[in-house]
Amino acid sequence: MTFEIKERDAAGRLCKFTTKHGTVTTPNLLPVINPNKMMIPPKEMKKRFHIEILITNSYILHKDVKLRKQALDQGVHKLIDFSGSIMTDSGTFQSYVYGDVKLDPLEIVRFQRDIGSDIGTILDIFGTPGQTKEEAEQGAKETIARAKKSVAEKGDMLLACTVQGSVYPDLRERCAQQLSMLDADFFPIGGVVPLMENQRYSDVVRCILAAKQGLDPSKPVHLFGAGHPLIFSLAVALGCDFFDSAAYAKYANDGRMIFQWGTEKFDDLTELPCCCPVCSKYTVSELRDLDEMERIRQLALHNLYVSYAEIKTIRTAITGGWLWELVEQRASANPFLTDALRVLREPKHLHWLEHYEPSSKKSALFYTGPQTIYRPTIHRYHTRLFTRYEPALKTTVVFPEGTKPYSMFYSREINHILEKKNVNFVVDSHLGPIPFELDEMYPLAQSIFPDEIDQETKENVKQVVDRFFKNKTLIHWNECTTTTEEESLKQNVNLDMRRISAVVDMQFGRGASTILLNGKITIIKSKRTGKIRNIICDGSHVISMRANDGLFTLKLEGGRRLHNGLKYPLLRVVATDDAVPFIKEGKSVFGKFVKDCDPELRPFDECLIVNENDTLLAVGRTLLNRDEMLAFRHGMAVKTRESIK
Amino acid sequence: MTFEIKERDAAGRLCKFTTKHGTVTTPNLLPVINPNKMMIPPKEMKKRFHIEILITNSYILHKDVKLRKQALDQGVHKLIDFSGSIMTDSGTFQSYVYGDVKLDPLEIVRFQRDIGSDIGTILDIFGTPGQTKEEAEQGAKETIARAKKSVAEKGDMLLACTVQGSVYPDLRERCAQQLSMLDADFFPIGGVVPLMENQRYSDVVRCILAAKQGLDPSKPVHLFGAGHPLIFSLAVALGCDFFDSAAYAKYANDGRMIFQWGTEKFDDLTELPCCCPVCSKYTVSELRDLDEMERIRQLALHNLYVSYAEIKTIRTAITGGWLWELVEQRASANPFLTDALRVLREPKHLHWLEHYEPSSKKSALFYTGPQTIYRPTIHRYHTRLFTRYEPALKTTVVFPEGTKPYSMFYSREINHILEKKNVNFVVDSHLGPIPFELDEMYPLAQSIFPDEIDQETKENVKQVVDRFFKNKTLIHWNECTTTTEEESLKQNVNLDMRRISAVVDMQFGRGASTILLNGKITIIKSKRTGKIRNIICDGSHVISMRANDGLFTLKLEGGRRLHNGLKYPLLRVVATDDAVPFIKEGKSVFGKFVKDCDPELRPFDECLIVNENDTLLAVGRTLLNRDEMLAFRHGMAVKTRESIK
Repeated sequence: MTFEIKERDAAGRLCKFTTKHGTVTTPNLLPVINPNKMMIPPKEMKKRFHIEILITNSYILHKDVKLRKQALDQGVHKLIDFSGSIMTDSGTFQSYVYGDVKLDPLEIVRFQRDIGSDIGTILDIFGTPGQTKEEAEQGAKETIARAKKSVAEKGDMLLACTVQGSVYPDLRERCAQQLSMLDADFFPIGGVVPLMENQRYSDVVRCILAAKQGLDPSKPVHLFGAGHPLIFSLAVALGCDFFDSAAYAKYANDGRMIFQWGTEKFDDLTELPCCCPVCSKYTVSELRDLDEMERIRQLALHNLYVSYAEIKTIRTAITGGWLWELVEQRASANPFLTDALRVLREPKHLHWLEHYEPSSKKSALFYTGPQTIYRPTIHRYHTRLFTRYEPALKTTVVFPEGTKPYSMFYSREINHILEKKNVNFVVDSHLGPIPFELDEMYPLAQSIFPDEIDQETKENVKQVVDRFFKNKTLIHWNECTTTTEEESLKQNVNLDMRRISAVVDMQFGRGASTILLNGKITIIKSKRTGKIRNIICDGSHVISMRANDGLFTLKLEGGRRLHNGLKYPLLRVVATDDAVPFIKEGKSVFGKFVKDCDPELRPFDECLIVNENDTLLAVGRTLLNRDEMLAFRHGMAVKTRESIK
Repeated sequence: MTFEIKERDAAGRLCKFTTKHGTVTTPNLLPVINPNKMMIPPKEMKKRFHIEILITNSYILHKDVKLRKQALDQGVHKLIDFSGSIMTDSGTFQSYVYGDVKLDPLEIVRFQRDIGSDIGTILDIFGTPGQTKEEAEQGAKETIARAKKSVAEKGDMLLACTVQGSVYPDLRERCAQQLSMLDADFFPIGGVVPLMENQRYSDVVRCILAAKQGLDPSKPVHLFGAGHPLIFSLAVALGCDFFDSAAYAKYANDGRMIFQWGTEKFDDLTELPCCCPVCSKYTVSELRDLDEMERIRQLALHNLYVSYAEIKTIRTAITGGWLWELVEQRASANPFLTDALRVLREPKHLHWLEHYEPSSKKSALFYTGPQTIYRPTIHRYHTRLFTRYEPALKTTVVFPEGTKPYSMFYSREINHILEKKNVNFVVDSHLGPIPFELDEMYPLAQSIFPDEIDQETKENVKQVVDRFFKNKTLIHWNECTTTTEEESLKQNVNLDMRRISAVVDMQFGRGASTILLNGKITIIKSKRTGKIRNIICDGSHVISMRANDGLFTLKLEGGRRLHNGLKYPLLRVVATDDAVPFIKEGKSVFGKFVKDCDPELRPFDECLIVNENDTLLAVGRTLLNRDEMLAFRHGMAVKTRESIK
């Protein structure tokens, strides 16, 4: 098996996952195939939805003597006529629904292995929301014990070990940690079906967060039994990679159609509010006139079209860097999802999410409502403002209240005031205080907020602003007077230096600017836009400012300076000795060659690649955070930019 | 032409609109057909999207000598091979884009008539956002003058007279009023394209509201040039019936794909986040491999699939009663739409919207964020609470802060407290104070709010709560003690009476309960649910409580009592004399037979149908508000329930 991150956003990821039967893109949805009753045969699913993976139930195959024999003789792929990846479930869910199913936990694992399942599942103990903590703990313990024994039986099958622990986050997290120490390949999060059925999305979120915080980040995670697309984007943003849908068929049997915003009874509809091939081919009355079996089949197809469209939308959002925007938009369809988003604000979770949050994105940050200000990116900005930003001038601060960021700083009039008055110029913006030096840096210039924001955001931001302005002498910008253009032009360079230093500190840590920019500075600007591009220090190109996110790209000479001036482990990714020759050739650093890493590095941060003796080898850009670098065996950890030959 | 409301929600409506070439359901989208270059022929559009109406440009037909002759000889329907309804535009937009187009305003109207256009458009003066008020006024004046002359030339063609006035709401409203006095059939709102292009949605909303507030409510309204589905739901909620899309082709030519949340460049996509037949048939790379013309065509088809899906979703939302929810969800995709929603809170607009807001809906009220609390339904509830609700007991009020509505009132324990303590019991809920008597009434029991609401909603509600509790003695519910079950059961009837009286007052006006319930009351309850169903007063069935919305249905005997006790025009719909025989037979009242109506009646309110001498004829349920009843010539105004034989 390999599992590699290709794109990422929030704590979500777009990965390539390889089984014996091919490569699967995640996030993905596994349609549930009932081997006794295939409403839509896997072949048709492949043709219509390009499915790469599905899930079927080994318990059902095992229970029926004839099916069991057939499965053992032909293998599960031939039995259900699908050549892609097949995951099998174990009967745990049946034991939850029907009570004890009398299965030997190891026998069912061996059976899954013997029928050639690509991913088999242990027979875990389904933890229900009504359990006491003792009951839940007992179940989790037994699940772990069974997982331990099952691992020995898995053969060349990938083994899915389900995280249980009912609604107790500490149990979930511990269960996840213990399962992660085993030779397991895949981690479903179990026991969430009754929570989903009661729209207890806050609890679902707590279950996911607890599991993810305990799990090996390099393994795929499957939210077992969550088949409604309403929850997909949020679950992906928290790090879930797989879903399974029995819902498409179950809902269809019940005359219900799945939509992005929820579910509608077919009988209540006078039109089909959808453009999938089913809803484009038939009108409501034509569908009504079909015979019942065919109508159910068409509803099931519709349900799958909509579900896969959501998966593709989520992948597009990950690649485009607007996954949080999507999550928040989807949450506006259901008040219980609004509650669920609130869980993410809790310090522990926000802290965890911030570690996975990319340092820059392709898309602008869009405001959707009160939840936006709690995004990890903004939390990071606020934190760094206090820990990394140092005003160049301690005396006075000018701030136009309510001014939108990046709109005011290019007028010569303002530049003049800045210099003349020897002040810091800070905008009291909708997302917090923005010193002029930072106004082009992600996510400030890349934010789209409404003219008027909601009260909650206002108050949240006011607290940050008040703390920022505390003990500072403030002058309102109206009170500044202007002088001539000439004067201000002379002083442009100095303002540029303030901008460069401040961004360097925000990006590489407080004080990094004095290390990096210690020498004679030449600033090269874009001829077209007039904006800062390359910084030359004592004749060497040290950093370049990127046009899209206003952050710096580190050049080798800049790396040398930071390496000399910043103590280990700051900004370092330590490569193992056997990787050194490759890095010197300019090859990127793969996860398995990372020995250690600065815990403060985030995905897409600029970094220093060093050997085990902290000798600088190269500069590059991280693709993973520390926890991921230490866990992932496959895929790139750092993209090397320039290496020392 | 006929234009009849069939379903409604917010100030939006689902209508049947009839032209010489058939019936069109609104809201609807008219694809723009360029007669010189049909990227997708109307026939194919009909097959794929079931289009009933399209728009083409008479200026283009008129300019080209050959086309002009062909159009005059064959008629426009044959020329573009479409047998449904055809609207024609006049060249106004071309004059905006290319400057003066040298067209005679009356000649182009006559031309449209002569080629058999179903709906022709006057050559109005395009008002641009940059105009001074004087310029805009001049343009609107000239537009009105041309409309006046054009009306005389329209023949049997329906004539669209465009509302102009740039970004000046008073000019827009006045222009709309003056056009409404002409024999015009259809009202486009013009000049919004440059606003749309700059995402000035707040201004678009102001334009729509001003136009709608001046227009005859019985005529179709078309938002000219708004082709992106992002704005459709909001525009419909404000009363727009038609949109046109040149965007589907223009965007496709530019390599852009329309999605519900905005637009994406095809070249930026690695997957197609959609399930329309185009996106289901092709992968990104397959689409890329098509020859350019065919790829553009497929992108155009996709754009239309998505646009029509949004139209169908909006219609479903109108029928289901969740149009505001849809509007707010869509707004979460774009911060400028959030700003646009804020315009609706302005007192003048909220007042207008409240008049069109149905008194009850099929769906629950879903919270989506801070904008929810400003919905007309909640505004109405808050207003009526102060003007119509009178606490039964003046002494004390018990209120559990933060309790969710309808969750606490059925415990015997609480019932007992209510009686024992001789108090009013009011829940300080997420949507305002809820006296126990009203807790089953729409929208209270039918609201789905999250457990925790945003700060802005909290503060908004707190103001209402504080005003409500002012000068009242409050006891916290924890301070109440409980007694035995027995005691409380005895007192059940009295509590029921308080509930019935309070709902009657909220629904029919303060004091209505003393008129309606003056006599010996018998309460009939549902055997299954135990809830109040029928109220018998002195042996006559006067009202029934509906299970779905907790509001009363008026029986004839109840109508008699209210008619006797409430002064004219309260609750009245006055039918003209010629309608009286039909009403006596139980037939419903059509718009053209309404002489006058209580201005306080809202759509779906219970009402008294009287003749011109205020003699009671029947009881019924309104489908229109007063302004609509007086304007609509077609369709039902009141559904008669019971009439006096």
